[in-house]
Amino acid sequence: MLLSKLFIPILKNNPSEAKIKSHQLMLRVGMIKQASAGIYSWLPLGFKVMKKIEEIVRQEQNKIGAQEILMPTIQSSEIWKESGRYEDYGEEMLRIKDRQKREMLYGPTNEEQVTEIFRSSLKSYKSLPQLLYHIQWKFRDEIRPRFGIMRGREFYMKDAYSFDVSDEEAFYSYNKFFLSYLRTFKRLSLTAIPMAADTGPIGGNLSHEFIILADTGESKIFTDKRIFDLNSNETELEKNSLQQMRKKYEQYYSVTDEKFNKEEFEKVVSEENRLITKGIEVGHIFYFGDKYSKAMSASIDLPGGKKDFVKMGSYGIGVSRLVGAIIEAKYDDKNEIMKWPLSVAPYDIALVPMINKNDTLALEKAMNISKELIKNNMDVLIDDTEENFSSKIKKMNLIGAPYQIIIGKKSEGDLLEFKEIGKETQNLSLINIIEFIKKQKNTN
Amino acid sequence: MLLSKLFIPILKNNPSEAKIKSHQLMLRVGMIKQASAGIYSWLPLGFKVMKKIEEIVRQEQNKIGAQEILMPTIQSSEIWKESGRYEDYGEEMLRIKDRQKREMLYGPTNEEQVTEIFRSSLKSYKSLPQLLYHIQWKFRDEIRPRFGIMRGREFYMKDAYSFDVSDEEAFYSYNKFFLSYLRTFKRLSLTAIPMAADTGPIGGNLSHEFIILADTGESKIFTDKRIFDLNSNETELEKNSLQQMRKKYEQYYSVTDEKFNKEEFEKVVSEENRLITKGIEVGHIFYFGDKYSKAMSASIDLPGGKKDFVKMGSYGIGVSRLVGAIIEAKYDDKNEIMKWPLSVAPYDIALVPMINKNDTLALEKAMNISKELIKNNMDVLIDDTEENFSSKIKKMNLIGAPYQIIIGKKSEGDLLEFKEIGKETQNLSLINIIEFIKKQKNTN
Repeated sequence: MLLSKLFIPILKNNPSEAKIKSHQLMLRVGMIKQASAGIYSWLPLGFKVMKKIEEIVRQEQNKIGAQEILMPTIQSSEIWKESGRYEDYGEEMLRIKDRQKREMLYGPTNEEQVTEIFRSSLKSYKSLPQLLYHIQWKFRDEIRPRFGIMRGREFYMKDAYSFDVSDEEAFYSYNKFFLSYLRTFKRLSLTAIPMAADTGPIGGNLSHEFIILADTGESKIFTDKRIFDLNSNETELEKNSLQQMRKKYEQYYSVTDEKFNKEEFEKVVSEENRLITKGIEVGHIFYFGDKYSKAMSASIDLPGGKKDFVKMGSYGIGVSRLVGAIIEAKYDDKNEIMKWPLSVAPYDIALVPMINKNDTLALEKAMNISKELIKNNMDVLIDDTEENFSSKIKKMNLIGAPYQIIIGKKSEGDLLEFKEIGKETQNLSLINIIEFIKKQKNTN
Repeated sequence: MLLSKLFIPILKNNPSEAKIKSHQLMLRVGMIKQASAGIYSWLPLGFKVMKKIEEIVRQEQNKIGAQEILMPTIQSSEIWKESGRYEDYGEEMLRIKDRQKREMLYGPTNEEQVTEIFRSSLKSYKSLPQLLYHIQWKFRDEIRPRFGIMRGREFYMKDAYSFDVSDEEAFYSYNKFFLSYLRTFKRLSLTAIPMAADTGPIGGNLSHEFIILADTGESKIFTDKRIFDLNSNETELEKNSLQQMRKKYEQYYSVTDEKFNKEEFEKVVSEENRLITKGIEVGHIFYFGDKYSKAMSASIDLPGGKKDFVKMGSYGIGVSRLVGAIIEAKYDDKNEIMKWPLSVAPYDIALVPMINKNDTLALEKAMNISKELIKNNMDVLIDDTEENFSSKIKKMNLIGAPYQIIIGKKSEGDLLEFKEIGKETQNLSLINIIEFIKKQKNTN
């Protein structure tokens, strides 16, 4: 892609309305544009990142055997009256009357809709477990939308639902999602910590939030810092292995403020291991048993002829919010350098040729290098503008492709000036650069 | 995928509420489930087909240099008041008041929103042309939603917008989309004919509908049947070649009923070439110059210092509707056989082993064959249920994977019973089957 053709309205300075760095960068570099309060359009740069995040989320859902469906954005109020949440939900629910004066709403979540799908589709324990997910736009009419897409009104979310025959089987499903969340955030190069959390309006008594550390986060967290050293690399998609993983994480105190108990914290966590800080919620999982299936009569035939309400859980990841969360974690706002993880970078590599009027030699060289990179499945951005070199680098540092090749007067022979963004330049041949980046891609 | 695990609520009989064959098949085979009037959830089988269509549409947009963005579903009424369409649009627009009593709406189309993005982003002719598109859910509050997803209220659509410096350049953009539409529908194995059409509420004076023939279609069409023999195989993405393509198509009379003129039709089309029939609109393109840019003050600096309003066109493809349109074109409802084009089939191939109680030999064989097929990037559905053979075949004929392998008692040695759906069985080795399907895939 040529930078001159890319639809990327870059601002000279940070927009004054943006208070946190993800909001600043996203407006500054033209990733999003506000449509109205808390509602954004995604421009090409932001859209590419969000799509790559979505695809990683999808792949990790598929790996645990979840099946993708797609529920509509507009729901009937009927099912919410059945569950009893129509009144409870309050003003955050965007309520709509259609032309026939029917009460509709823009889905803020989908427990009711998916329970309706389940109860009218399956009747037998033989069809269980079922794990269904969708990735769809949702709306919550926040009174004070802020921080750009981090706390917007229209947002993009993956939500999954599990259906099981018993509590025991349901915990197995819960643990599958627990693992898939750890894997998903790892691929996004985020350290997300599962924390015991309140269930809020979703209901139930078992719940974890997945939180990444960030000073700008809205969640206050209290942990035993040793939990940050854990990983799920050895965990297998199998009942016992998943249980071990849960135990391993739950041995350390780790809660959000709604669950915080000072006395317990100080009792179980020795002083040197205590960490009290802030974080951003990027995922939230719930087990609520028969809360919805009972209210909405979603029952299944058990072996032996009895019936019971199906046991359900729900599992959310904020896909659009993750774009902001990754920026909060990876953007060096002092030096104005964004370093996207390769797995979700809008471009793998940026080519920055020095172009003077009537001297397009460096640009031609860039075009040739680009062809080789594209042949190797890389997504390349070429700065073909005639701006001065330092503003070119400044711009590329904001765009944040993880790798850059500088093509200047000095570039002679086979060696190219290659750098990882924000690091020192190295002289490498194109073949070595390609090998290096491929290797990085394969680790993901 | 094992059929017993697939979330696919199949009905024994055609649902009585469905009047056309796409609606019948989609409900029958569990591709969709109605959420409320004109609003549907997409279940795994339907979702897979829609996603494959979406991806083909996307690839063909990218090939002509269009850049993907994503505008929100909920828009502010302000921009619609600027264009003057807020009142005009009538009751099909779903109007919403948020908690702050602001007038919002669920976007039925996006000319205003994209004009707002453009005017606040770009100012110079140097940045043109720009082709932007998005694929997003839209809502039109039809008074009488019907025919399932063919005429639903919430629907999935690709819409693109072009921005140019002059009429001449704008026609070039228009022709790029014209070509990309011909290519898109061809990859979906549909014969879609461009027809001169009315511009309706979008405005402008140049417009083509792309229509596929179908008895159940809502559009009445009048054509010179020789237009069906044309193709764009030789057309290149270059000004003159695109103009030739337009001329070639426009030499034959081909209009929808709003544009129909009996006298002209009978004058220019000889009797043996006249075709009066029905069709389904799957795409619609418009050129409307400065209709929106003038009303919304989206101007650009021209070379020499003058300013002018940017020239715009818009280009829609009904992605969710195409699922239905393909069924209307490919479903043999007499024999209850659906044959998905390989490019969008939910599964490439179905394996149907004959399974008796305590005799799982055929199933094991199927699992082994499946592994080989998956290694070759094929999407495989295995019927692992214990139903009788004829109901298995019946079900697979409705699901519509284009190829089947029957694994019965007879299957011995290296040859397998392979068939293209609805055709005769052939005995082929697995290697030959894989080669055959790969070859079919490559032609797409």
